[in-house]
Amino acid sequence: MLTFALAKGGLLKDSIKLLQSIGLDFSAFLDPGFRQLQITDPTGTAKALLVRNGDVSVYVQYGQAHLGIVGYDVLREQRPNVAQLVDLKYGGCRLSVAVKESSPYRSSLDLPMHGRVASKFVNCARDHFDSLDLPVDIVPLYGSVELGPITGMSEAIVDLVATGNTLRENGLIEIETLFYSTSRLIANPLSYRLNTDQIADYVAKIRDQVNATALV
Amino acid sequence: MLTFALAKGGLLKDSIKLLQSIGLDFSAFLDPGFRQLQITDPTGTAKALLVRNGDVSVYVQYGQAHLGIVGYDVLREQRPNVAQLVDLKYGGCRLSVAVKESSPYRSSLDLPMHGRVASKFVNCARDHFDSLDLPVDIVPLYGSVELGPITGMSEAIVDLVATGNTLRENGLIEIETLFYSTSRLIANPLSYRLNTDQIADYVAKIRDQVNATALV
Repeated sequence: MLTFALAKGGLLKDSIKLLQSIGLDFSAFLDPGFRQLQITDPTGTAKALLVRNGDVSVYVQYGQAHLGIVGYDVLREQRPNVAQLVDLKYGGCRLSVAVKESSPYRSSLDLPMHGRVASKFVNCARDHFDSLDLPVDIVPLYGSVELGPITGMSEAIVDLVATGNTLRENGLIEIETLFYSTSRLIANPLSYRLNTDQIADYVAKIRDQVNATALV
Repeated sequence: MLTFALAKGGLLKDSIKLLQSIGLDFSAFLDPGFRQLQITDPTGTAKALLVRNGDVSVYVQYGQAHLGIVGYDVLREQRPNVAQLVDLKYGGCRLSVAVKESSPYRSSLDLPMHGRVASKFVNCARDHFDSLDLPVDIVPLYGSVELGPITGMSEAIVDLVATGNTLRENGLIEIETLFYSTSRLIANPLSYRLNTDQIADYVAKIRDQVNATALV
């Protein structure tokens, strides 16, 4: 049976809406009282696993899910061995360098050599500063990255920005954008090549749906 | 000013109680409506940062906090450059190998060569299986690790067990314990050696308090 891996959190509502539009109903996951982590669509044609954002590509890469929906930001950071098939357009955000508004830094190159940059996107941050040939110390922080500059631990952060409210509330400003991100449909490369459980049909339906919505 | 890094979650209540017993009041962090991530004790002698469990040792290692309270499990996994000073005794749990109850495996060595083991404790899991000379594929999963065996992605998991309820609810059983864990008081090595802001006094008070409680 075709299995989807869906990310908990911000993308879930739109992902379920998208799958509903191609005839698959996993809306039980949106019920706050619902505790199961895997369900079968009422028509019995497909299954979905509800997993953490960072785990979607693991389930897809290891073949436990044929298809998955996850943010491009996660794919850039993890570089999993999965096929990236469709840009689903929702869940827009950007990965940016931010500093204290009161600091003198207005671009990445203004940062001091061997300064500190806090981020949970350690690979993306390292690539960015390597590409500028600016040696900085990347400090891995997995929650409340904005505490880095506030406590004085780091000169800058590299973090996801959607509305910018968290930055503003903490007196931080964006000085550079590494890349923009939206949600992506990914597939296990082997399942996709072998067209296991008619993956290709589902991918085509999702692609049509996304294109149709984009035209509205 | 002496700064503590405290972990959000299960350890917080006991950590705050312990610090209250040596005269430092950070109980505002327990108020669900409270949103600040750093506060100063009402007496003005110390500060506390409220951070994610996995970030405590980062703040301490980089010197932004002089002292921190974090689980031994995290220290074993991250191996940060911090001084481990006092076993605080609370927050007890163990890191264990678990499998499906219906599986034939009853010890780590029963697992098939090149089988899969899902864990967020990838370093601890790798060390354990390396020490047995059993080559397994460690699958990094950061949420709901129990889905590994349930979906058939992995033969086993390595995960923290406190009461064992999560395992039971998911039809899993523990077959081996890697180590037991409790919360630990850690310090920045340099601050500790230089006795910055009278760290040693605080450490002594905490040690006395823990010993006194243990005698009751």
